[in-house]
Amino acid sequence: MEIRIMKNILDRNSNKAEENRKLLRENKVMMVNIISSPGAGKTTLLERACEALAEDYSIGVIEGDVTTDRDAQRLKKYNIPIVSINTEGGCHLDSHSISKALEPFDLASLDILFVENVGNLICPSQFDLGETFKMAVVSTAEGDDKPSKYPMIFSEARAAILNKTDLLPYTNFNVESYASDLRSLNPRIKMFQTSASRGEGVSEWLTWLVSQVEG
Amino acid sequence: MEIRIMKNILDRNSNKAEENRKLLRENKVMMVNIISSPGAGKTTLLERACEALAEDYSIGVIEGDVTTDRDAQRLKKYNIPIVSINTEGGCHLDSHSISKALEPFDLASLDILFVENVGNLICPSQFDLGETFKMAVVSTAEGDDKPSKYPMIFSEARAAILNKTDLLPYTNFNVESYASDLRSLNPRIKMFQTSASRGEGVSEWLTWLVSQVEG
Repeated sequence: MEIRIMKNILDRNSNKAEENRKLLRENKVMMVNIISSPGAGKTTLLERACEALAEDYSIGVIEGDVTTDRDAQRLKKYNIPIVSINTEGGCHLDSHSISKALEPFDLASLDILFVENVGNLICPSQFDLGETFKMAVVSTAEGDDKPSKYPMIFSEARAAILNKTDLLPYTNFNVESYASDLRSLNPRIKMFQTSASRGEGVSEWLTWLVSQVEG
Repeated sequence: MEIRIMKNILDRNSNKAEENRKLLRENKVMMVNIISSPGAGKTTLLERACEALAEDYSIGVIEGDVTTDRDAQRLKKYNIPIVSINTEGGCHLDSHSISKALEPFDLASLDILFVENVGNLICPSQFDLGETFKMAVVSTAEGDDKPSKYPMIFSEARAAILNKTDLLPYTNFNVESYASDLRSLNPRIKMFQTSASRGEGVSEWLTWLVSQVEG
């Protein structure tokens, strides 16, 4: 019974996701669904993106949080439109909450809409939000075995950022083993290495990111 | 409708959890449900626990993994009974899978049963397994705001381990702010600081842990 119910929930989610996708496409908005464990550095990466892109691109952010709106507070200084979704304990965003969150945005003038999903490497990967693509973030402190142990998001993502490279000298993270596991799960995935807190590697990621915006 | 279904699932989970709890109590087994984000160091902490305790206590482990059995493989060298639960993508363990996993154990001779839950700071906290208590693990690399942002597990746990203290000098983790947030969520929680990879702080945690075993 639980399987049938889960299938119904996912079907309803997919239908609404397709509506969102159509709306975003009509307005030429690229929506990036960012997924990671708690504390991998999603918000810091968004801070760097806002600093680098806000002059040339019209950016918006949807912030998913389990309880607080701390992440949204951190991004307020960039003076961009931000909508917070408090999932009240829920472990992922879904396409219905995104559909409501899209309403306040002036989509016609928006180029890039970042969605910072709830910090969770498992559940968010099952819920299509209507995004243009998913992006995974993993921190060097989490260990190089994350793609093998949590393959769902890494198989689906268009890009994976290995963040906190400044901690690499102090961990036993094996970058080659990580990259090789990732490549065999998803041969087409784009890989980036960043230290978002130091700003290192961020421009390579952002150069690629804006190349994905449709003209 | 989804809320009613979720309530049914949780009710059925709680009933089976009480059965597990009764069975464990009858056999004087202390079951510790360990919950953290991916890569916070649960398995390494268990390696240290096996090394330090296996001579004086009869230890068993239930390993929850989304796909692989890598964590179980890491613990095999300690020659203790280990049962792997592969959730096949599922984001948490539940009391029914634990009930089945208990069957192969010789409970009458067991003192401590560790359950390494799936790497996820959200969903596992909602599912009572029948454990004696829950224990949270958080890595210094995840940031000091984790108790505030993911309060569920920290409110319920009997102990919280701040792991990877060897990385503290290289992060902006504020131990006081972390401890104060944790204390206000859960005034009775026991706090430990460890570097499981270096073995630092582990004996304080284990001294406390064995003090929780009923005579």
